[in-house]
Amino acid sequence: MAIPFFSKLRSQKHYLNLIKADLKQVSEFVEAQANCFDSEVVDYMETVCQTKGKMLRPALVLLIAGATGGIKQEHIRLGAILEMIHMASLVHDDVIDMADKRRDVPTANSLWGNSLAVLLGDILFSHAMVVSTEFNSIDFCKRLASIVRDVCQGEVAQSSRLYDLSMTKEEYFEIIRKKTASLFSAATGGSAWLSNVSPEIENALYQLGDLLGVAYQIYDDCLDMVGDEDDAGKTLHTDASKGKLTLPIFYLLECGDRNVEASLREAIENQETVDYSKLKDNPVYADSVNKAIQVALNKNEAAREILWLLPQTEYREALAELTFYLDELLEDCRISQ
Amino acid sequence: MAIPFFSKLRSQKHYLNLIKADLKQVSEFVEAQANCFDSEVVDYMETVCQTKGKMLRPALVLLIAGATGGIKQEHIRLGAILEMIHMASLVHDDVIDMADKRRDVPTANSLWGNSLAVLLGDILFSHAMVVSTEFNSIDFCKRLASIVRDVCQGEVAQSSRLYDLSMTKEEYFEIIRKKTASLFSAATGGSAWLSNVSPEIENALYQLGDLLGVAYQIYDDCLDMVGDEDDAGKTLHTDASKGKLTLPIFYLLECGDRNVEASLREAIENQETVDYSKLKDNPVYADSVNKAIQVALNKNEAAREILWLLPQTEYREALAELTFYLDELLEDCRISQ
Repeated sequence: MAIPFFSKLRSQKHYLNLIKADLKQVSEFVEAQANCFDSEVVDYMETVCQTKGKMLRPALVLLIAGATGGIKQEHIRLGAILEMIHMASLVHDDVIDMADKRRDVPTANSLWGNSLAVLLGDILFSHAMVVSTEFNSIDFCKRLASIVRDVCQGEVAQSSRLYDLSMTKEEYFEIIRKKTASLFSAATGGSAWLSNVSPEIENALYQLGDLLGVAYQIYDDCLDMVGDEDDAGKTLHTDASKGKLTLPIFYLLECGDRNVEASLREAIENQETVDYSKLKDNPVYADSVNKAIQVALNKNEAAREILWLLPQTEYREALAELTFYLDELLEDCRISQ
Repeated sequence: MAIPFFSKLRSQKHYLNLIKADLKQVSEFVEAQANCFDSEVVDYMETVCQTKGKMLRPALVLLIAGATGGIKQEHIRLGAILEMIHMASLVHDDVIDMADKRRDVPTANSLWGNSLAVLLGDILFSHAMVVSTEFNSIDFCKRLASIVRDVCQGEVAQSSRLYDLSMTKEEYFEIIRKKTASLFSAATGGSAWLSNVSPEIENALYQLGDLLGVAYQIYDDCLDMVGDEDDAGKTLHTDASKGKLTLPIFYLLECGDRNVEASLREAIENQETVDYSKLKDNPVYADSVNKAIQVALNKNEAAREILWLLPQTEYREALAELTFYLDELLEDCRISQ
């Protein structure tokens, strides 16, 4: 599975067909933004926009739109805005991580250096804000700007707490809600807002994105511990070594086996490489991963519960299928004992 | 003169006293923003905000406000927003230039690395956008987001045209209007907009900022050719060597002395260091710098003309004094023959 979440969806499930044409419109909207940029910027931006993400956030916008009255042009615009914000944050992430490639495509910083990559990310962020004014809602502009701020604050919090064993699980949840779940939440809640649903439904759908985002990030964190690098298409087993405390690592640090706890703690404190191969046969390893998976499954189930507030449509079914599919991905990470 | 433009103003002129208390309010507004950030971000942000710029943009906001009906709380907010945007762009500029210090203060990237500096700049940009929604005007949000995009596009254009001898003077003006003048224009025009002036006056005051910004950038570009490094508090004589084609360099490239033209052209083409010491005694050097200075003086005079559209107040006098002061700075750069 070259793209952990979505390509499997694409190949195995049929519900993406439901929004295939609309997703294409989102892509076209993003590509058409090239016309808004200066001639010196256009070529760079076209390359950046070609390497767009998994379109997961636009897909959520469109499915929620379908489930709350139908997909309108404004939903296409929202999907494009969120994808541009996501792309901007990826461009800056690659500068931060000094990454040469992202899913086998050369990154902006590797092609043109950090200077241009920082500026291109800034241009994408600010352009997304320009486009967001087209909804003619100050409240929405404020919410969106706050979300961009939150995504970045979540990343600052994460990097400032690396190797910090005094960090709590509550703080971990706070960080992943900001850095990952806030854009999912903007997709589901923002889409509902555009559909003019009641405030109760709107809030519930913001909550849905939040739950899905948290579940998805926990899945990603578990994948780092159990996944196969070739399958995942990225380097794995590095979170603990990089000092990134994730949910399965928290559980391992409190697993009850004093030796495991002490050696993991020591490795993190000394910023040493954590070698899971020694740990993998110890039942506490499986316990810790499985416990984290269970938390994600519960979040995902809570997300699914919210769907029943919506009328029965094929889009609601598709959203439910999406949550079941995330369940499957999570179950695939489970370590049998 | 440790700070080329403003410290001299501060020491030699009295009109800053007019807005001293208001400028302090802008500073306090910026410092109070610390409360809006997460605990992990606050400490970094406090340090970043301490090293704020010359407060030139807020000063323009306040002087125009005084000259168009009086300084209101909204003008303080606008001054703070523009200073935050300016600070964000400085933080990213320092990452781009790999600068360790800015006016003798360690830069964010030198203190905490590129990763945090990129994110802190992003947080400041997005926070400025959040605060800008408090004016309750979609048009203003759109204008401000476009300006941020323009500032960054101007910088991309500049860095993508380094060493490019096919660049024209028109393109140079376009670049400096975006990267420098657009925030000056936002200060003067935005301030007028908050004062509810007529559309004609508002447009004229946007134009005023544009002219001042262009004049100021040409001054900065001439300073690079003639200034004293100790006085200026920064490295000088590097624009041509870095491939940055500025107005005095354009004039030197078309000065009529075939030897000078060819050797400068060759040095830029080969990305070699340009040594002005060999050129300085050639009258074409003085001619080129003085010609650029004259262009800036003309822009500055056009800016001053616009002031006479405003009623006579001490703020209008202060604005006029400011333009006369920029004249003086420009005259100081003039090379006598």
